[in-house]
Amino acid sequence: MSETAPRVPDEAESEDVVNPWSVSSSSGKGVDYNKLIERFGCTALDDGIRQRLQSAIGDTPLHHLIRREIFFAHRDIAPILTRIENKQPFFLYTGRGPSSTAMHVGHLLPFIITKWFQDVLNVPLVIQLTDDEKFLWKDMTYEEAFHLAFENARDIIALGFDPKKTFIFSNFRFMGQCPEFYQNIVKIQKCVTMNQVRGIFGFGDSDSIGKIAFPAVQAAPCFPSSFPFIFGAMKDVPCLIPCGIDQDPYFRMTRDVAPRLNYPKPSLVFSTFFPALQGAQTKMSSSDPNSSIFLTDSDKVIKTKINKHAFSGGKATVEEHRLLGGDCDVDISYQYLRFFLESDDELDRIKQEYSSGKMMTGELKKILIELLQKIVGEHRAKRAEVTDEVVKEFMTPRPLLL
Amino acid sequence: MSETAPRVPDEAESEDVVNPWSVSSSSGKGVDYNKLIERFGCTALDDGIRQRLQSAIGDTPLHHLIRREIFFAHRDIAPILTRIENKQPFFLYTGRGPSSTAMHVGHLLPFIITKWFQDVLNVPLVIQLTDDEKFLWKDMTYEEAFHLAFENARDIIALGFDPKKTFIFSNFRFMGQCPEFYQNIVKIQKCVTMNQVRGIFGFGDSDSIGKIAFPAVQAAPCFPSSFPFIFGAMKDVPCLIPCGIDQDPYFRMTRDVAPRLNYPKPSLVFSTFFPALQGAQTKMSSSDPNSSIFLTDSDKVIKTKINKHAFSGGKATVEEHRLLGGDCDVDISYQYLRFFLESDDELDRIKQEYSSGKMMTGELKKILIELLQKIVGEHRAKRAEVTDEVVKEFMTPRPLLL
Repeated sequence: MSETAPRVPDEAESEDVVNPWSVSSSSGKGVDYNKLIERFGCTALDDGIRQRLQSAIGDTPLHHLIRREIFFAHRDIAPILTRIENKQPFFLYTGRGPSSTAMHVGHLLPFIITKWFQDVLNVPLVIQLTDDEKFLWKDMTYEEAFHLAFENARDIIALGFDPKKTFIFSNFRFMGQCPEFYQNIVKIQKCVTMNQVRGIFGFGDSDSIGKIAFPAVQAAPCFPSSFPFIFGAMKDVPCLIPCGIDQDPYFRMTRDVAPRLNYPKPSLVFSTFFPALQGAQTKMSSSDPNSSIFLTDSDKVIKTKINKHAFSGGKATVEEHRLLGGDCDVDISYQYLRFFLESDDELDRIKQEYSSGKMMTGELKKILIELLQKIVGEHRAKRAEVTDEVVKEFMTPRPLLL
Repeated sequence: MSETAPRVPDEAESEDVVNPWSVSSSSGKGVDYNKLIERFGCTALDDGIRQRLQSAIGDTPLHHLIRREIFFAHRDIAPILTRIENKQPFFLYTGRGPSSTAMHVGHLLPFIITKWFQDVLNVPLVIQLTDDEKFLWKDMTYEEAFHLAFENARDIIALGFDPKKTFIFSNFRFMGQCPEFYQNIVKIQKCVTMNQVRGIFGFGDSDSIGKIAFPAVQAAPCFPSSFPFIFGAMKDVPCLIPCGIDQDPYFRMTRDVAPRLNYPKPSLVFSTFFPALQGAQTKMSSSDPNSSIFLTDSDKVIKTKINKHAFSGGKATVEEHRLLGGDCDVDISYQYLRFFLESDDELDRIKQEYSSGKMMTGELKKILIELLQKIVGEHRAKRAEVTDEVVKEFMTPRPLLL
């Protein structure tokens, strides 16, 4: 069966909206990911996969984003695991739509896990900045979108990617640097009809032809022939894509097209969504400054935002809280700690104390405030070290270590 | 009113099919061009325009393709005439879809008139080879389409274009050489909806997203900012496009989009179609070797094809022909002479003698055979002189004489 024809959701399921442009849920716990796995036709990232990955990488422990099932699902990860076990080449591909100068902490997640994969597995990585997509979808000039791609590249580089193994590109610029990229895009476009993108992405007659054509631009980096300066004549090197589950439609389409072009299908690992400070009903929005912690927020702003806006799972009164304890499943401060606090022991202790009523909301928030002040502060310092020269190096098409 | 909303044809008119992929007529005289002018909403290229052009260029006589109304219609040529009169800059843009190694003599027409404009007006010229379009529309590999672009470039160069003023490009290659080209394409794509390309080009849900996106690729060279190496920061230089009337839908769309991008609208001059040897009901097809004279045909093949296949307007018997004369309006040999015989006096004499019955079909065909043998023979010789180095020079992005 075609991967681009997921099961049509019934009434009850259709409350969760998940696509590359909109994510929302009516539940305080957020999107029902089990139902989403079934609906999208992907596979849970279960203990068996985690154990196999752990065996393949040796002594390094799995990243907490994997241990805690924040990366919760996959498509076809087995061939990549086999390649890791057999020391055969593959590459990593992830990306970002540069819609705002200020990235929020949730935007870091795919890059944090991708960096971990790169460090542990020692493989090349390509990062696509879809400035063309943002120009097409947003009320934004070309110049703004192009500029944001470079600003966001600075934040991504600050995470510590290895310049010998990492190529970052703006679509607007890279298209004019590499004929093979456009060639693959047109080859993909020839395989996909309006009917298909209508079904996969919900595009309609009032959508611009740029939007309709764009999915092929996000698909093309899945194929090593789009990067001849990295892969030369190697056409059969597959990629692993860490990304949010909302990006799956692009890669369902790509996986359907790949065999027709005699190209390898991409494999994927999917993360859950990073919740807004106000609660897990919505994905965060870069356009609402209070919906998350931004990488540009000062220590004071971080403290104020969390104290004022972070949805609490605590009880209404001290007495009630001490008696009944807080609800970690909906408490945003606890949820954020799941994403960013590395120590499992400490996270367990916090969960135990908060849900038993021993820890109050104020104490929990204080832990998160200090952690995010540290993370954002360190990021700010590292970002300041990323010179224009360094950005240029990462964004120049060049051979990478394979 | 939007230029992209031409009047819907009524029943009688709808017999002539004219779009970039299909041209056919039920009349032996071919497409009814007066009705087409009305339907497309363009303007007849009349005596007033011809006189103004003649005054502007001085002593050089108008090209016979213009004198004989083979270039019969235009869109908005007045601003270009004003620029010629005021010695202000503009540029020429034409193109070709490289669908076959062998171009036929009809394929030369837009290039013949374009070369004349370049020689007379001394302006830069860009020639787009739409290998991506042919790959998308035809059952053809990327490699074939790309190769044909370079083969066709050789034929075009053989016509004698000035390398100091002419840039020829394959879309597949140029896209990877010039970021500004892709930038303009995406800017255009943002302004055009599926609804619009459905109305203008008849695209439907079963068409590939490549086809749906393509019109922006043909539109982008209308704007000087797609060629920064030629025009630098000059964004307001308009273009004049000599082309077949079947290409008008692309440029109706472009003219609608241009003001929204603050770019100049292109102006156009349109030619009629070059008829098939078998008669004017159809545009010629590169896939039927007997439908026309190809630039690769030997003298013997030219002679056989014309004698055997060229539709005759002569009468059934010698006696009848001597009495009633031939019908030049449907006689393909005479029609081909209108395209290729430069001398008006000689053409008039032939018409007079043939339609009066003094000249027989065999004599008429002999004149055409000798003329085309000469033209094709000279082309063959000139094409042989076009080295790979020369092709490379024409196809390298570089400054041109403005």
